Amino acid sequence: MDPRVVRELLERVRGSDVSVEEALETLRQLPFRDIGVANVDHHRALRQGTPEVIFGERKTVEQIARITEEMVRSGSNVLVTRVNPEKAAALTLRVPGFRHAVEARTLWLQVTPVPPRGRGPVAVVTAGTSDIDVAEEAVETLLAVGLEPARFYDIGVAGIHRLLHRLDDLRKAAAVIVVAGMEGALPSVVGGIVSAPIVAVPTSVGYGTALGGFTALFAMLTSCASGVVVVNIDSGFGAAMAVHRILKD
Amino acid sequence: MDPRVVRELLERVRGSDVSVEEALETLRQLPFRDIGVANVDHHRALRQGTPEVIFGERKTVEQIARITEEMVRSGSNVLVTRVNPEKAAALTLRVPGFRHAVEARTLWLQVTPVPPRGRGPVAVVTAGTSDIDVAEEAVETLLAVGLEPARFYDIGVAGIHRLLHRLDDLRKAAAVIVVAGMEGALPSVVGGIVSAPIVAVPTSVGYGTALGGFTALFAMLTSCASGVVVVNIDSGFGAAMAVHRILKD
Amino acid sequence: MDPRVVRELLERVRGSDVSVEEALETLRQLPFRDIGVANVDHHRALRQGTPEVIFGERKTVEQIARITEEMVRSGSNVLVTRVNPEKAAALTLRVPGFRHAVEARTLWLQVTPVPPRGRGPVAVVTAGTSDIDVAEEAVETLLAVGLEPARFYDIGVAGIHRLLHRLDDLRKAAAVIVVAGMEGALPSVVGGIVSAPIVAVPTSVGYGTALGGFTALFAMLTSCASGVVVVNIDSGFGAAMAVHRILKD
Amino acid sequence: MDPRVVRELLERVRGSDVSVEEALETLRQLPFRDIGVANVDHHRALRQGTPEVIFGERKTVEQIARITEEMVRSGSNVLVTRVNPEKAAALTLRVPGFRHAVEARTLWLQVTPVPPRGRGPVAVVTAGTSDIDVAEEAVETLLAVGLEPARFYDIGVAGIHRLLHRLDDLRKAAAVIVVAGMEGALPSVVGGIVSAPIVAVPTSVGYGTALGGFTALFAMLTSCASGVVVVNIDSGFGAAMAVHRILKD
Amino acid sequence: MDPRVVRELLERVRGSDVSVEEALETLRQLPFRDIGVANVDHHRALRQGTPEVIFGERKTVEQIARITEEMVRSGSNVLVTRVNPEKAAALTLRVPGFRHAVEARTLWLQVTPVPPRGRGPVAVVTAGTSDIDVAEEAVETLLAVGLEPARFYDIGVAGIHRLLHRLDDLRKAAAVIVVAGMEGALPSVVGGIVSAPIVAVPTSVGYGTALGGFTALFAMLTSCASGVVVVNIDSGFGAAMAVHRILKD
Amino acid sequence: MDPRVVRELLERVRGSDVSVEEALETLRQLPFRDIGVANVDHHRALRQGTPEVIFGERKTVEQIARITEEMVRSGSNVLVTRVNPEKAAALTLRVPGFRHAVEARTLWLQVTPVPPRGRGPVAVVTAGTSDIDVAEEAVETLLAVGLEPARFYDIGVAGIHRLLHRLDDLRKAAAVIVVAGMEGALPSVVGGIVSAPIVAVPTSVGYGTALGGFTALFAMLTSCASGVVVVNIDSGFGAAMAVHRILKD
Amino acid sequence: MDPRVVRELLERVRGSDVSVEEALETLRQLPFRDIGVANVDHHRALRQGTPEVIFGERKTVEQIARITEEMVRSGSNVLVTRVNPEKAAALTLRVPGFRHAVEARTLWLQVTPVPPRGRGPVAVVTAGTSDIDVAEEAVETLLAVGLEPARFYDIGVAGIHRLLHRLDDLRKAAAVIVVAGMEGALPSVVGGIVSAPIVAVPTSVGYGTALGGFTALFAMLTSCASGVVVVNIDSGFGAAMAVHRILKD
Amino acid sequence: MDPRVVRELLERVRGSDVSVEEALETLRQLPFRDIGVANVDHHRALRQGTPEVIFGERKTVEQIARITEEMVRSGSNVLVTRVNPEKAAALTLRVPGFRHAVEARTLWLQVTPVPPRGRGPVAVVTAGTSDIDVAEEAVETLLAVGLEPARFYDIGVAGIHRLLHRLDDLRKAAAVIVVAGMEGALPSVVGGIVSAPIVAVPTSVGYGTALGGFTALFAMLTSCASGVVVVNIDSGFGAAMAVHRILKD
Repeated sequence: MDPRVVRELLERVRGSDVSVEEALETLRQLPFRDIGVANVDHHRALRQGTPEVIFGERKTVEQIARITEEMVRSGSNVLVTRVNPEKAAALTLRVPGFRHAVEARTLWLQVTPVPPRGRGPVAVVTAGTSDIDVAEEAVETLLAVGLEPARFYDIGVAGIHRLLHRLDDLRKAAAVIVVAGMEGALPSVVGGIVSAPIVAVPTSVGYGTALGGFTALFAMLTSCASGVVVVNIDSGFGAAMAVHRILKD
Repeated sequence: MDPRVVRELLERVRGSDVSVEEALETLRQLPFRDIGVANVDHHRALRQGTPEVIFGERKTVEQIARITEEMVRSGSNVLVTRVNPEKAAALTLRVPGFRHAVEARTLWLQVTPVPPRGRGPVAVVTAGTSDIDVAEEAVETLLAVGLEPARFYDIGVAGIHRLLHRLDDLRKAAAVIVVAGMEGALPSVVGGIVSAPIVAVPTSVGYGTALGGFTALFAMLTSCASGVVVVNIDSGFGAAMAVHRILKD
Repeated sequence: MDPRVVRELLERVRGSDVSVEEALETLRQLPFRDIGVANVDHHRALRQGTPEVIFGERKTVEQIARITEEMVRSGSNVLVTRVNPEKAAALTLRVPGFRHAVEARTLWLQVTPVPPRGRGPVAVVTAGTSDIDVAEEAVETLLAVGLEPARFYDIGVAGIHRLLHRLDDLRKAAAVIVVAGMEGALPSVVGGIVSAPIVAVPTSVGYGTALGGFTALFAMLTSCASGVVVVNIDSGFGAAMAVHRILKD
Repeated sequence: MDPRVVRELLERVRGSDVSVEEALETLRQLPFRDIGVANVDHHRALRQGTPEVIFGERKTVEQIARITEEMVRSGSNVLVTRVNPEKAAALTLRVPGFRHAVEARTLWLQVTPVPPRGRGPVAVVTAGTSDIDVAEEAVETLLAVGLEPARFYDIGVAGIHRLLHRLDDLRKAAAVIVVAGMEGALPSVVGGIVSAPIVAVPTSVGYGTALGGFTALFAMLTSCASGVVVVNIDSGFGAAMAVHRILKD
Repeated sequence: MDPRVVRELLERVRGSDVSVEEALETLRQLPFRDIGVANVDHHRALRQGTPEVIFGERKTVEQIARITEEMVRSGSNVLVTRVNPEKAAALTLRVPGFRHAVEARTLWLQVTPVPPRGRGPVAVVTAGTSDIDVAEEAVETLLAVGLEPARFYDIGVAGIHRLLHRLDDLRKAAAVIVVAGMEGALPSVVGGIVSAPIVAVPTSVGYGTALGGFTALFAMLTSCASGVVVVNIDSGFGAAMAVHRILKD
Repeated sequence: MDPRVVRELLERVRGSDVSVEEALETLRQLPFRDIGVANVDHHRALRQGTPEVIFGERKTVEQIARITEEMVRSGSNVLVTRVNPEKAAALTLRVPGFRHAVEARTLWLQVTPVPPRGRGPVAVVTAGTSDIDVAEEAVETLLAVGLEPARFYDIGVAGIHRLLHRLDDLRKAAAVIVVAGMEGALPSVVGGIVSAPIVAVPTSVGYGTALGGFTALFAMLTSCASGVVVVNIDSGFGAAMAVHRILKD
Repeated sequence: MDPRVVRELLERVRGSDVSVEEALETLRQLPFRDIGVANVDHHRALRQGTPEVIFGERKTVEQIARITEEMVRSGSNVLVTRVNPEKAAALTLRVPGFRHAVEARTLWLQVTPVPPRGRGPVAVVTAGTSDIDVAEEAVETLLAVGLEPARFYDIGVAGIHRLLHRLDDLRKAAAVIVVAGMEGALPSVVGGIVSAPIVAVPTSVGYGTALGGFTALFAMLTSCASGVVVVNIDSGFGAAMAVHRILKD
Repeated sequence: MDPRVVRELLERVRGSDVSVEEALETLRQLPFRDIGVANVDHHRALRQGTPEVIFGERKTVEQIARITEEMVRSGSNVLVTRVNPEKAAALTLRVPGFRHAVEARTLWLQVTPVPPRGRGPVAVVTAGTSDIDVAEEAVETLLAVGLEPARFYDIGVAGIHRLLHRLDDLRKAAAVIVVAGMEGALPSVVGGIVSAPIVAVPTSVGYGTALGGFTALFAMLTSCASGVVVVNIDSGFGAAMAVHRILKD
């Protein structure tokens, strides 16, 4: 419950600027506030500058277009994730202003400037080149919430020198997102050499015993480096949102 | 590589206070510094006030005692996790100063004060009473790294009012650790109502389709609340160490 | 064995109205009647007003059309489930009277009025918008057996206020079908706030650790809310038939 | 939000009987009352005659005894599930009045009469003799909520005549709980011959490919008899609570 | 329905030797016959010479003793499977006449001679020495149903010459039971060199990727030798009963 | 080692009819003959009247055609399994004489009469109509090896009377192949009422918890009816070949 | 740390040939050189005659072409694995000199002669004809690293004589790659009769319980023949690279 | 077939020193030679200096003692693996000469000197201290076959500097055995920096998502470092035997 809004309303009731029935209706329309859920909506994107997010995989072009238009009308930026090239093409034609990040498979429509958060860069690290699309989804999401991504791609553990070579830069990051498929070993190594928060993203890269990402997932969860946390397979978006929570203030 | 240490050494070589062979030996003994890994050790506990951690489950009383004694000699605080009551009893007899947290199954030996971090409280939430031992492991670890835990126990989703009742307090937390077994639904609900970082810990509580914690694990990873991150099953320690990274500075 | 039937037969044997051989033959022909198998068939839909159901997924247009025509000839209503758009289009051309419920992927042909059951509404709840097709299959099946569905869509646990907002209406339901994918947490929350029978339907919505619906399935089975029951993944039909049994009389 | 409560408050604000700050505070405190959470607790056992249930498996004798005593003080009957013989012996000594159902592994303490529900009997069916302990847990739970169990034990499908022999009696049941391990085939057969609600309970009986109950669980969920619902492995308690919901009024 | 029995009854009714009520009662008592299930019981062991079988694993000494005594009273031989040494010792004291096959973990009590079936020997083959207990369960069961076992132990595929050396003898068998754990390769090889029926029994021998017998089970089911059939893990009894069906007459 | 062959050779060495080197070479060349591998090939189809079998799923039209032509040249009948409609059409054009069994997905080319085996009929039973293609593969294979199939389709356990109605006919079978998907319960019921050999074939019919046939597979392996044996999922061919071994004579 | 390098540096510091700051910087820059990472790259293919390898499955024609051209420019031979026919056709047009091995699904471009290693032949054995594509990937990789493959195809265990017949040739191999799907039994048998290093490759050949290659994988890992090692499912490339390590010098 | 032995025998037959019947008997007793399997037995340990190996886990003290005594009589060295402390104590009392390697859980009895193989050292690397028992089993097996182990313990990837520090020594190894549990990342890193053969051994160290060693196993098999091969979980013995094959000559 946002005290200022309700106090103002109550004062207008007392001053008879607003009838009891009107005030009742207003409160009724604010349903979530009276159980104190205003922050929820806050968190879920109604503020200026924080984007609305649409999970595009199971939605039609028409559905995404309509939701986007409504959101834009209310002043929100819009991020659409998991759109394939066909949908993306149709949507950029249909909704003016969409920017398509091809590798990230995202669409971005900005109607309000995104204020920079003023936190250090967020390192986005991948083990191989095949993990880059998931990493780019993280990058686009970070940009959408005002964070500054720094890419460190293809520095997997089978050539450990590639990682060590970037160590100084990695250590400057405010948080690190580590994206890796196959055996998912990279977060353990990174966890041992940087002390920032580390969010690991397993990817479905690999075949056979890679188990569609589950081997990397389990490897990351059972990592011998302490304090590494994990999100769902291929969820670059989830990792970026976790960093969004971590670097909130 | 800690520049101050090496610079001082080099200057002593130049000033002939130290022979080349001695300096070589010294550098050889600092092996990790010359690839810049000093921070790693830093991170892994050699600083005053940060504890050394011993995973006690597979170690004997004798092994734990000896490692502890060495660490204490070097001025480190020591946290031992996963010690059963028998080992704990033997160790408190053997090593003076051990404090046994029974539910957490940890031992704690403090030789140096742990400076408080000055960050807000870390909420430790459990779904049920059976999740408390895992939660207490997180609590003890938080204390060991200078963070302030705040307990919110037994507020699972089957009685949603219990959770809503604690909402105001939950929202004051700098980070939230959510511990839940069975269907692992609590992090999704908490994720929807607080905006702080959320680290979810699945527990092996439940039988049959609880799958020894895997159902909760998978549920948490596929949570509909964005930005929730997950650690290994029953790993209260891992969750606290993740928060340790998150609230570092 | 129905004693009245057999007693009458035996009396006619004694009275020589029926020869031993005839009686023997009659007894031999009895088996299903005297184990009450007529009722079985009753149950399996031959009564007026209860539909015949055809599982359409593996059947050809031709097969479905022919079975439907036979059933219509015997006066049965017909419900076809799991028909894709192509089959549905072909069948509505081929068999006059079919009504196609697009989202539910069902076809319905009514030749006999379905008498309303006179029980309260059956709440059909979904966690997200992606669960709606499964929910609609339940809705269409409920209508086909004379029950009154009430839709409560997209009120998942990550925005708990959406659910609490509909609480009064939910509590009026005679039974509740809860449809949820991903972490499958909704039935636990609903189970804690309504006392009606709850049938949970896991859906295959989600990716990675959603495991094609198995995470939701296991979460629902290990639910911390007691008395929640579960049907197969994506089986809106199964849930509605369970409610059909529950609200029989 | 209950409109009457809020309207009255607003009128008192307008009439200056209540200050704006006081009204704000009152609205802030409302949440649980106006979402009717009292009912939730109602449902969770505070009414006279409905038992409190304690899941005994992970609790100590001391914990169970103390919780029981508190509950008894507030006038509740108490059902403890999953107590092994040692705990049961200790608790019957410690808490006067406990009745131990050995096969069910339950303790029952009745301080208030349980009013019979006046619904027909609830058939509790098992496939084999090894399933009886799970069935008895269902029986004890049914008794505790005022329902009348009728036992049909050891009538599994490998001797189908045993089942058919009991058909008339089975068909008189208001609901049927079917308990089966190994291949879990019994609910499919029962589902084909009775039209009452059927709650299937898979048991962990069997070895090798019985998979500790998962084969029976999956078999029951994919049953070819429509409208069969399922609860967790070995959960006689869960099945009885489901019937409790089904036969509520 | 056995026509002779019923015809005779009907004739006695007609001749008034038996009243209608008596006949009705008699028919009621014959339940299984009138659906023709008499053979079932026949098949399930009531004939002279075929043993009753008691699965001993989950039964107490008292239960096994009482069931045995009843069976012996009705003239049946009794085979008890899966009895551990303690139960076996207690039962041989308690029930006179029990013969304990230690490796097979069976008890055998013969009150009626078992007529030999006059079929060729049944080869019981094992891959290693650790599979012998399962093989011996098969051997004891074969003896109990009048078949003649021939042991071929420890002739696994890693020393293929051991198998080839016994080829002539193997080819004389009327049926072959192949017992193997670990990679379960033996049935494929045997299936390629003998043309008799082959029943494969996977055992839980091995560790790690042996998966408690599932690797052997799956390997046997996907065998490249055609016509190999499989029973449950460690089920020497099941294999012998399959051969009992195969060599019936 | 065939003693007669070697004795003769040795006598010829002694009599100097054969030089030591020649004898050595002969012994070296013997291996397959003296371990009777000719029989192996015999078993694998070189005899007149037994078909060669080609697993068609992974082979091209060209490959199948060429292998067929070679086999026909050597006088063998040819059975091709798992051919999709396109391949079947191409092959019937390419190779004269192929008969295509559409539901069974087999091709059959007979160049030599298949002598009837003179054993009783082999019952091929299915639980549902979706299992028929697998059953027909069994039927075609039985015909190809000279056995007489008898179809009993769609008599699953959810309408147990359908099975009981066919009992007399089922009991006349020399062996029974039971084909069932979903919960795979039918072999348990059939196993309880017939005493002939029973080969169970799990099918991949069903969705969700049917697990692509694994639930049926595990259910059949853990069947409460003793002596039921199982082959790979969807392997109608494998079941028929098992019966081929069983009824060899 | 290479002592000679550091000693020299220290001596130059002492002699004031190098300033402390310069020495500090040098030490800071050393890490990869003094851990010999040049060798790593050596190992990863920069030497003349060892090919660069491109995993083609997830790369576009354009990407593969560009990487190839760069590699060729630096004098490397190039092996592309997992290219489907369409990509292969496009690449052979685009990049002159590519040789396409159709079954192996590889492309090979040789700009530098591959010196033969002068080790004995490497036997590449398959159980069936469906395993040949994986075997051919191994063959092409062996050729690319200068080893001499010897093919032994279709000698699986169901016709053990086929294997025994090739025994003398098999025993001449310097190493053996055994490729098998389905039950994966072949490495156990081969392991028992040859003493050379054996690398087993499970293939995804088979259906149902073949589990897409996991049954073969687990069977090979739990092989009763000691010293057999295993690579990922379908990884002919991985097996050849393992032999490349084994026969290095 | 060993030509010398048979040639000599044939010459004695020709010279009438041996009768045909005697020669026949002799050949019969050499069964494996005439299919050329003599080498198998050779390989399986009858040569001087190569040990017989007894898998001790499922054998009794009596069984192990007797097998050992027989082997010693025939001049073989004996290695017993997987003996728990109780068995080891009993056996060292019972059989004189046994040396017990406590951590390796092996017993070793040497009656013949083991000639050193003259190959470079075999590095045995572990990720953590909990992997040492598996590593020691490898060490003891290497010693038993005349190879020289070099221990590199506790150099896991979370402190990558520990590994880099030992790089020069690692690179001198003729082969590397890498033992790791939890996420199993170490072989990937080692594979990137040494070019020798690498045999990876997953261990069951870890809890929850470590899956008893399967996560490490799958991670190793899907390793991004090429040419790494894998043995069964916890099989230090298997890894050493693989190296025994690799370094044979």
